[in-house]
Amino acid sequence: MVELIQANDGAHLQDKSSETSLTDKDLRRRAMNVIPGGMFGHVNASQFPPGYPQFFTHGDGCRVWDADGREYLDLMCSWGPIVLGHRHPRVEEAVRQQLARGECLDGPAPVMVELAELMVETIDYADWALFCKNGTDATTWAVRIARVATGHRYVLVAKGSYHGIANWTVSTSSGFIPLEQRGTILFEYNNRASLEAAFAKAENDVAAVIVCPIRHDVHRDLELPKDDFVKGLRELCDARGTALIHDEVRCGLRLNHGGSWEPLGTAPDLGAWGKALGNGYGISAVVGTDAFRDAARVILATGSYWFAASPMAAAVATIKELERINAVQIMHDLGTQLQEGLRSQAQQWQLDVNVSGPPQLPFLTFHNDRDERLAFLWTKACIDRGVFLHPFHNWFLSAAHTPETIDKILEVTNQAFKIVATCHMDDGDVLSACE
Amino acid sequence: MVELIQANDGAHLQDKSSETSLTDKDLRRRAMNVIPGGMFGHVNASQFPPGYPQFFTHGDGCRVWDADGREYLDLMCSWGPIVLGHRHPRVEEAVRQQLARGECLDGPAPVMVELAELMVETIDYADWALFCKNGTDATTWAVRIARVATGHRYVLVAKGSYHGIANWTVSTSSGFIPLEQRGTILFEYNNRASLEAAFAKAENDVAAVIVCPIRHDVHRDLELPKDDFVKGLRELCDARGTALIHDEVRCGLRLNHGGSWEPLGTAPDLGAWGKALGNGYGISAVVGTDAFRDAARVILATGSYWFAASPMAAAVATIKELERINAVQIMHDLGTQLQEGLRSQAQQWQLDVNVSGPPQLPFLTFHNDRDERLAFLWTKACIDRGVFLHPFHNWFLSAAHTPETIDKILEVTNQAFKIVATCHMDDGDVLSACE
Repeated sequence: MVELIQANDGAHLQDKSSETSLTDKDLRRRAMNVIPGGMFGHVNASQFPPGYPQFFTHGDGCRVWDADGREYLDLMCSWGPIVLGHRHPRVEEAVRQQLARGECLDGPAPVMVELAELMVETIDYADWALFCKNGTDATTWAVRIARVATGHRYVLVAKGSYHGIANWTVSTSSGFIPLEQRGTILFEYNNRASLEAAFAKAENDVAAVIVCPIRHDVHRDLELPKDDFVKGLRELCDARGTALIHDEVRCGLRLNHGGSWEPLGTAPDLGAWGKALGNGYGISAVVGTDAFRDAARVILATGSYWFAASPMAAAVATIKELERINAVQIMHDLGTQLQEGLRSQAQQWQLDVNVSGPPQLPFLTFHNDRDERLAFLWTKACIDRGVFLHPFHNWFLSAAHTPETIDKILEVTNQAFKIVATCHMDDGDVLSACE
Repeated sequence: MVELIQANDGAHLQDKSSETSLTDKDLRRRAMNVIPGGMFGHVNASQFPPGYPQFFTHGDGCRVWDADGREYLDLMCSWGPIVLGHRHPRVEEAVRQQLARGECLDGPAPVMVELAELMVETIDYADWALFCKNGTDATTWAVRIARVATGHRYVLVAKGSYHGIANWTVSTSSGFIPLEQRGTILFEYNNRASLEAAFAKAENDVAAVIVCPIRHDVHRDLELPKDDFVKGLRELCDARGTALIHDEVRCGLRLNHGGSWEPLGTAPDLGAWGKALGNGYGISAVVGTDAFRDAARVILATGSYWFAASPMAAAVATIKELERINAVQIMHDLGTQLQEGLRSQAQQWQLDVNVSGPPQLPFLTFHNDRDERLAFLWTKACIDRGVFLHPFHNWFLSAAHTPETIDKILEVTNQAFKIVATCHMDDGDVLSACE
């Protein structure tokens, strides 16, 4: 390979075993040759402000380091998976012990049973659990189970909600064909009338309604579910023989140590879980009630790595530690500190912002922010000063943050607000010199 | 959780931190409560002969141990992923070093670029690479890329071929609806006329034909691709503006260190890779030619764990080690030793068997084997004597096997043939006393 690189670009021979010797710029240049567009997916830095790092070398607690050696206080937590902090000692030890025995064996390791029991114990409505890899695996499997259990066909999905990248999730991305998306009907989140209309459009032949516990679509403020929507969802599903599926991939284990709607006194029939479940180790899950057990039993869904043992060991350690330290409360308090600080700072700078979301999944938008230019300017100012967050996707707290790290983050956000206040024009646009 | 278990079944308090203290029977009983049917997917032991182990505690080289402490020579290699042997030192060390820095960071680690470069160097037709988790992710992503690049709609799939569990793969399992499978048209593997008919049925609006490099459907002998089929595939795809996709998930890095059809002098446009790629660590990949680079660039496909670093480090170590030791040749020689031994033994016992597949993916069926009763009897006899293989799915060699371990396996298969020969009735049935 060394020969190939030299032949391709004449670059000086680099010691690739020492990753930190490569700059972000070096890596991007090489990546452009062998990865279409240089990167893909939600981590593709080309969609973010200039200066946004592309490659990361390590993480520790609430901190990450990029390939140029820059340190960040991490408010993205790897887009959710990191809930106890990067490389949490108890999770790492559980993984290390499992890897000393084996990762991908000819069948599951005993820890799988322990994890399934722990999920049934933890999640109010869960009578059983199944494990997979992607959030998409879990949401898709849940829909299949709903179809078998109910005998119905259609799935209702809220417009703009993200449930993964399968055909039926009706992504706006390329490469899907309408021919394969005819099983899905859209409705408006938090709008009971719209939900009823979708049922009618499907002539009540609805296997499942899938919803996130809160509305956390990209490019907009987060929204809590309204009482009448929550009530209406459960009533409509019960009345029409439809399964209610919660997509807990983003909220699960952050909003509540259990089902996210448990504090609301209502529950879905099936749930798709992921992200925080394994503190960064690749695992997702479907859980459900006894009424859906037989349907879950007859479906063949599987994958080469779905029985891998170390992510299950990581998940057991993660769930136990989250409960032991009452991580939900920790993240709630830290997030509240952050949100109150942001609101107060914006007011002092006379900036019109909306700080939204439950404290554990905070987000900030600027009013009248044409093309999100203010959000990009503010985010870039934060990134440049060592706080890693996102211009158009909600952020995540972890239990590894502390009141002191939130104070440090707020020092940076205050400087970022100052820059925006200085560059802010009345029409919501930005002085181009500031960008 | 301990309280819950006691309340549920009154079982004596068990030390779950010491996994090996639990028997397979204990684990199955507990699993039955919290996992629908007790297990799911391709590892579900309920579909195999009695005595087939369900839970595994560890692996080392070409050996695995079940929860009852029984040791097996492993001819399944975890259904393919284990290509260098369980817990190969170089792969484990690469994983350990990466985990010491971080697993799931806010973006990819530098090792991602090294892996993409290595795949481009290794696979004859690959100009770029993308990474995901499941084989299903890779085959589905490849089809999406083909659709964007060609502007066509349909995908042609060989009847009985397994390309994962997405709707379009037209699994026979429950929970899919015809409404979502209308983009797929079937043809017969190794049958050029059938392929032409499928093109005609799609009115040449075909984005992709996806094929495995060999025919390795379950419940039947493996089949190598015929010359005129290979030639016809390439010609038809070229003539109709259709992408040829190889599903290399099962064959990749075992049949050839590179594309599996490289020795045939022909190549696909896109390839889906997995299994052997990471020696058991969860990673899959799409690779393709420059002509498909722009289409690959515009599609959003992503997952929370697709940028996880340790499986990429594992894949780099795996590919390098496979090349260093010429693993393809090792597995070819070992598989040949196994296949010749099996043929010779069956002849001596006057049993009518077919040993099929390339040596690296061997398989054995009995002629006139009603309901696969002979296969089950023979497999059970092997399992009981410490050789782990499968009654209706091809097996896998790894580079951790040796001529001596193949000899040991053949000692066991000889005893298993003896049992079948003793119990075999003329009509292909089995004396029920033998089962």
